[in-house]
Amino acid sequence: MAKSFPLKDPVAPVRWTGSLLKVLDQRLLPHKVVYLNCSTPEDVARATKSMALRGAPLIGCAAAYAMALAARRGGFRGMEAAAPKLLRARPTAVNLAHAVSHMLAKGRQAVGIRNFADMMSQAAGRYYALDLQANRDMAVLGASLLKKRNCRVMTYCNAGALATSGLGTAVGVIRYAHHLGKVERVYCCETRPYLQGSRLTLWEFMKAGVPATLITDNAAAHLIKSGAVDAVFVGSDRIAANGDVCNKIGTYGVALAAKRDRVPFYAVAPISTIDPRCPSGSRIPIEERSSAEVLKVGSCRIAPRGARAAHFAFDVTPRDLVGAIVTERGIIKPVNRRSIKRILHAI
Amino acid sequence: MAKSFPLKDPVAPVRWTGSLLKVLDQRLLPHKVVYLNCSTPEDVARATKSMALRGAPLIGCAAAYAMALAARRGGFRGMEAAAPKLLRARPTAVNLAHAVSHMLAKGRQAVGIRNFADMMSQAAGRYYALDLQANRDMAVLGASLLKKRNCRVMTYCNAGALATSGLGTAVGVIRYAHHLGKVERVYCCETRPYLQGSRLTLWEFMKAGVPATLITDNAAAHLIKSGAVDAVFVGSDRIAANGDVCNKIGTYGVALAAKRDRVPFYAVAPISTIDPRCPSGSRIPIEERSSAEVLKVGSCRIAPRGARAAHFAFDVTPRDLVGAIVTERGIIKPVNRRSIKRILHAI
Repeated sequence: MAKSFPLKDPVAPVRWTGSLLKVLDQRLLPHKVVYLNCSTPEDVARATKSMALRGAPLIGCAAAYAMALAARRGGFRGMEAAAPKLLRARPTAVNLAHAVSHMLAKGRQAVGIRNFADMMSQAAGRYYALDLQANRDMAVLGASLLKKRNCRVMTYCNAGALATSGLGTAVGVIRYAHHLGKVERVYCCETRPYLQGSRLTLWEFMKAGVPATLITDNAAAHLIKSGAVDAVFVGSDRIAANGDVCNKIGTYGVALAAKRDRVPFYAVAPISTIDPRCPSGSRIPIEERSSAEVLKVGSCRIAPRGARAAHFAFDVTPRDLVGAIVTERGIIKPVNRRSIKRILHAI
Repeated sequence: MAKSFPLKDPVAPVRWTGSLLKVLDQRLLPHKVVYLNCSTPEDVARATKSMALRGAPLIGCAAAYAMALAARRGGFRGMEAAAPKLLRARPTAVNLAHAVSHMLAKGRQAVGIRNFADMMSQAAGRYYALDLQANRDMAVLGASLLKKRNCRVMTYCNAGALATSGLGTAVGVIRYAHHLGKVERVYCCETRPYLQGSRLTLWEFMKAGVPATLITDNAAAHLIKSGAVDAVFVGSDRIAANGDVCNKIGTYGVALAAKRDRVPFYAVAPISTIDPRCPSGSRIPIEERSSAEVLKVGSCRIAPRGARAAHFAFDVTPRDLVGAIVTERGIIKPVNRRSIKRILHAI
C-alpha cells in the first residue's frame, strides 16, 4: 500500500477498553454519533441482533471481543456459555461463527493459565488487527483490477470502515483506487430498508473525499445500462465453496445488470467469509427480518395500516455473475470450486 | 369481462364537474384523501409536474380535461395556447402528447360551432370513458395469459386505478385474474423514491381484497429467483416502435431477473402508450427529477448533509425481456417491430 495513503476512518465502529466494548450505534448515523457500552456478551449479541452493529467482518470482530468479555466474567466456561448466544444473533454472516470458534480454540489452549482473561482480550485484539491488515491487503489487490484512470464504480450496502475493523472491504478498494487516481466517482445504492448506502457508505466516502453520488437501488440497472459504470465492487456476508456470493438483499440484481452489459462485478471479502462447509449458495440461510422495517423508513410510515410485507435481508449472487473475489490472500478468478479451494489451502 | 366482477375503485383519481377538474393529490396517499381544484390548464400542468397526479394514462386523461378547461376560457385559441404548457409538464409519458393532439383535432373540427366549450368537455369525457373501457378489455386479455389457478404475481410502481381512469392496466389485469381465481397473491415493489408501490398499489389491492405483500425493490430479483413468482405484470409510460418498454425506474431490473429464471414478464398498456415515431427505447427521453426526492423519504432525511444524488425517473426494458404486451386491441406476442406495427394498424 502506498505510504501516502491517508488511512483515516470517519469514526471507529467499536472501541475496546479491556473490560468494555463501546459499540457505535449505526442506526443513528449519519445524524448522531452515539456509543453503546457493552459489558457482557449478551450486550454484544443484542447490539448485533438489533443492527446497532452490522457488517459481516465487524460482527466477527465484535464477537471476538464479546468472547473476551465472557472470559473476564466466567473464564473458559463463560466463553462456552456465551458462544451459542452470540451465534444466534444473526444467521447469515459466517464471520460470526468464525470468530467464536477462533476464540474458543484460543481459550481451550490457555485454560488454567494465569491472566487467562487478559490473554483472551489480547487474542480478540489480534483478531481485530488481522482484519484491519486483511482490509489493507484487499485494498491493494482490488485496486489492481482497475486498469485505467478515472473509472466510475458502483458499490452496494456498506462494506466500509463501519462494517469492518477499519477501511473496509469494497469501500477500502474504492478509497485506495481513488487515491491512486483510478476512481473518479462512486455510485452508492441506498440499500433499503436500512439505508446503509445513504446513511453509512455515502458518509464514509464524503469524509474520505471520494466524489460520491447516491442512487435508489432500483436505478442501479439503468445506470449500468447507460454506460455510466466501469466496475462494481461489493462486500459479502458468506461465500459458498462453489463461489456463490451471499450479500445484502439487492446485490444479485446489480450483478444481473452488470453481467448483461459486461461490466465487471467483484466481491471483496476476507478469507474468513468463505464457508468451505457450505457447498453452494442455496444452502446459505437467508435471514428474514421484521416486516415493520419495510413498512417504515426511519420513523415515517410508508404503507397503509394493516399492510403486510416480507423482508429478506440477503440474497445470493450465483458465481457465474461474479468476475472475481478479492481476498487478502489473492484474487480468485475465475470463480469456481477449484479456485476457491486453492486459495483456502494457500498460506 | 365477467358480470360478477366488482369494479369498485378505491377512489377516483380525477373528478370532472364540467368547469373544474378535481385532482386527487396522490402525494398524500394513503394517509390523506385530498382533492386539488384545477380551474385552468396551468393548474393541471402544475399538478402533473408536481406528481400530485401521475400515471401515464391518467396524465393523458387529465390533459384532455385541461384542454376542455382551456376551451371554456379561450375557445380553440385557448386550447392552442395551453397545449405547449401541458406538453412541458412531464417529458416521458407519450399519453400526454396523445391526449393533447386528440383534443386539438377535435377542437379544430368544431371551431365556430356554438357550445364549443361543452363539446370539448364531452370530448374529454369520452377520452376518459374510452380509457376505462380499454382498461376493462386489457384486464380480460391480460388475465388470459395466466394458465393456472392460484398464481403468485408481481407488479411494480402503480399501474392501477390511480394511474388511469379507473381499474388500471397491470393492476386491472391482476384484480380481474384474482376475481377468476387465477391469482392467490401479488407482490408489490415499493418503488423508491416516490413509493407508489407501498403508498398506492398496496392500498388499491387491500381495498379490492387481493392478498398483497410489500417488498423493497431490491428484493424483487431474490423473490423471483426463489421461485415465489409465476408472472410479472407492469404498466408502461411509452413503448417504442420496436417494442422496447419504458416504465418507472427499476422495471428493467425486475425484467432481467424474470428473464434469468424464465418467469414471464408482461407489459400492460393502452395503444395510446405506443409511440410509432419513436424507433427504439434509446430515443425515449428519460426524465431526471430533483435529487432532493432521493435524499429524503417523505419528510425524513436519509443522507448526510451536502450529499449528492441522481434521480432518473424511468428506465427502458429492451424488448427481448418482454414476453408480451397486453393492449385493448389484443396481445402483442412476440414483441417486435412487425407485431407492434400490425396492432397499430388493426381496428
